[in-house]
Amino acid sequence: MSRADRLESVVRDEGLDALLVTNLVNVRYLSGYTGTNGLCVIGDGLRTFLTDFRYVTQARHEVDGGFDRRQGRQDLLEDAAKSFPAGRVGFEDHHLTVRAHERLREFVPEGTELVPAGRLVERLRAVKEAEELARIREAARLADEVLRELVERGLPGRTERDVALELEDGMRARGSEPSFSSIVAGAANGALPHARPGDRVIADGELVVVDLGCVVDGYCSDCTRTFATGPLPDDAADVYNLVLETQVAALGEVRSGASCRGVDAFARERIEAAGQGERFGHGLGHGVGLEVHELPTLSRAAEGDLATGNVVTVEPGVYLPDRFGVRIEDLVVVADRGRDVISTFPKELQTVG
Amino acid sequence: MSRADRLESVVRDEGLDALLVTNLVNVRYLSGYTGTNGLCVIGDGLRTFLTDFRYVTQARHEVDGGFDRRQGRQDLLEDAAKSFPAGRVGFEDHHLTVRAHERLREFVPEGTELVPAGRLVERLRAVKEAEELARIREAARLADEVLRELVERGLPGRTERDVALELEDGMRARGSEPSFSSIVAGAANGALPHARPGDRVIADGELVVVDLGCVVDGYCSDCTRTFATGPLPDDAADVYNLVLETQVAALGEVRSGASCRGVDAFARERIEAAGQGERFGHGLGHGVGLEVHELPTLSRAAEGDLATGNVVTVEPGVYLPDRFGVRIEDLVVVADRGRDVISTFPKELQTVG
Repeated sequence: MSRADRLESVVRDEGLDALLVTNLVNVRYLSGYTGTNGLCVIGDGLRTFLTDFRYVTQARHEVDGGFDRRQGRQDLLEDAAKSFPAGRVGFEDHHLTVRAHERLREFVPEGTELVPAGRLVERLRAVKEAEELARIREAARLADEVLRELVERGLPGRTERDVALELEDGMRARGSEPSFSSIVAGAANGALPHARPGDRVIADGELVVVDLGCVVDGYCSDCTRTFATGPLPDDAADVYNLVLETQVAALGEVRSGASCRGVDAFARERIEAAGQGERFGHGLGHGVGLEVHELPTLSRAAEGDLATGNVVTVEPGVYLPDRFGVRIEDLVVVADRGRDVISTFPKELQTVG
Repeated sequence: MSRADRLESVVRDEGLDALLVTNLVNVRYLSGYTGTNGLCVIGDGLRTFLTDFRYVTQARHEVDGGFDRRQGRQDLLEDAAKSFPAGRVGFEDHHLTVRAHERLREFVPEGTELVPAGRLVERLRAVKEAEELARIREAARLADEVLRELVERGLPGRTERDVALELEDGMRARGSEPSFSSIVAGAANGALPHARPGDRVIADGELVVVDLGCVVDGYCSDCTRTFATGPLPDDAADVYNLVLETQVAALGEVRSGASCRGVDAFARERIEAAGQGERFGHGLGHGVGLEVHELPTLSRAAEGDLATGNVVTVEPGVYLPDRFGVRIEDLVVVADRGRDVISTFPKELQTVG
């Protein structure tokens, strides 16, 4: 069954007659199209793909043959509405802007009602097919390779930015690219969960958070390790061990059927029990696929359970403002009876001279 | 007058009591903040900046001192609504999604009305300050340097992808990065205005479209040149000359007060007169700044006039499907009595062996 076929049945289950798909990542997932202007309308036997002049040739090469490919004007909404059936047509309310929605409403034919229906494609995307898993595994393997190179070349005496550029050069040399801007954050910068690598020179005896991911055929990986650059103060080593033990224990909770909120809570309780709860301000993990952040989410506000074929990160972190941070993150494939951890770089504290 | 002060007076002119700014590029423009979760509320003496736990330290370093910096939960909308004054509060309807708007509505205090008010900050951003122009000029200069390296290294016998990677390496070696994925598109690929560089090996005697831009301190450049790799068929040379003459003539139309639609029409009529009107399917140009596509737009649907301090591309193109394409693009600063073309790489047809 094609992805569009599966979506058609979700659309029907939601009581809709069709779904307008405007989120380009979803458009790619359904149709294969990788350009920057395009949309799909999917319904009962309905498979419309629409793009403008600039991408017509690209669409001819990329878009799945099951789609009826059409050319519209650059603002595709008016042309999209022409293929709406009568009845309830869903739109991606988490993606469509208020202004685009207002415009779309003008074009909707009589007898058609627009209905908010976000994240239907995202829910399909959360369960990966074998070929998607193969790409994510390869992206994870490349990230591991790049980390190994980093350890060989060393950290102290170099700026965070230089190290980050080198990581990304390593990805490109392997035909890949970064799935997000690599983080290399030493000492107090490591306490910023989303630090940007700067001109700071990495010194001896500090903790350095390295967070990176690769892209293979559109699919992302995501991995974090925290390295030492020499002997650490006791409390830094203690925090490292707390995060590592929590991370390993939380991995053991990942399996099909586990509650997303429950896995987060499991890790959070351990860090709270060690008195560091307030220093773990983000969620435990997130799905990874065509986007580096997608469904499912492991957090305090998460809903639903893990399912076989989900790919999630497990990444507890503890951040001591103005001092240092520790985060350890693996990428994990959820299986019926457990999980397959596809990040293979060692997690024991390594000193990189 | 600070950017927030100028926005405050725009907000007042629009009959609003405050504006909720959620577009992160606009947030950066107003406050200096470069993280990935944050918003501003600007009104009469009101300067609220809001981010979550992950970015608090970053915000302390980056956000302009005129702002009242606050920490909210990761979904910032509920906390944002707490600083809404009574009366009419604008929101960026071209950016806020339908779902976020619905959520926001729940939090709006009694006596406050939400009003669609998109692109107010974008309109300010369209007129650049001296320090913004300096960064854009530097980004344009780096793109020129990278093009010069390309010419020295040659094109035939290499894949489009290798050439594109080399361009981007050249940017990074200069401390910059690409403002968008570089385009290197030979022969029939050049007929795709947004081609992606692939495994195709560039041959002798073809046209190669090279479209690239750099980023300097957040500010973009954008430049396209089309090269020959050997003697061309007559019609290819004719198309090149048509595009070049059109581009040069259109540059002469760029000045403060010129109609955005009129400048596009001027170029379009020339290409139509040569019988290639249908092969020029995109607009003549677009603004460039913190984003590589921003206001003002030079196109058939454009509104308004050019103003001193605008930075726009002028980039006519002619695309012959399955054969070749030609596009020539300069970056131009609009001045009171004319324009300053800041792309300096030569535009005469160059043969790159």
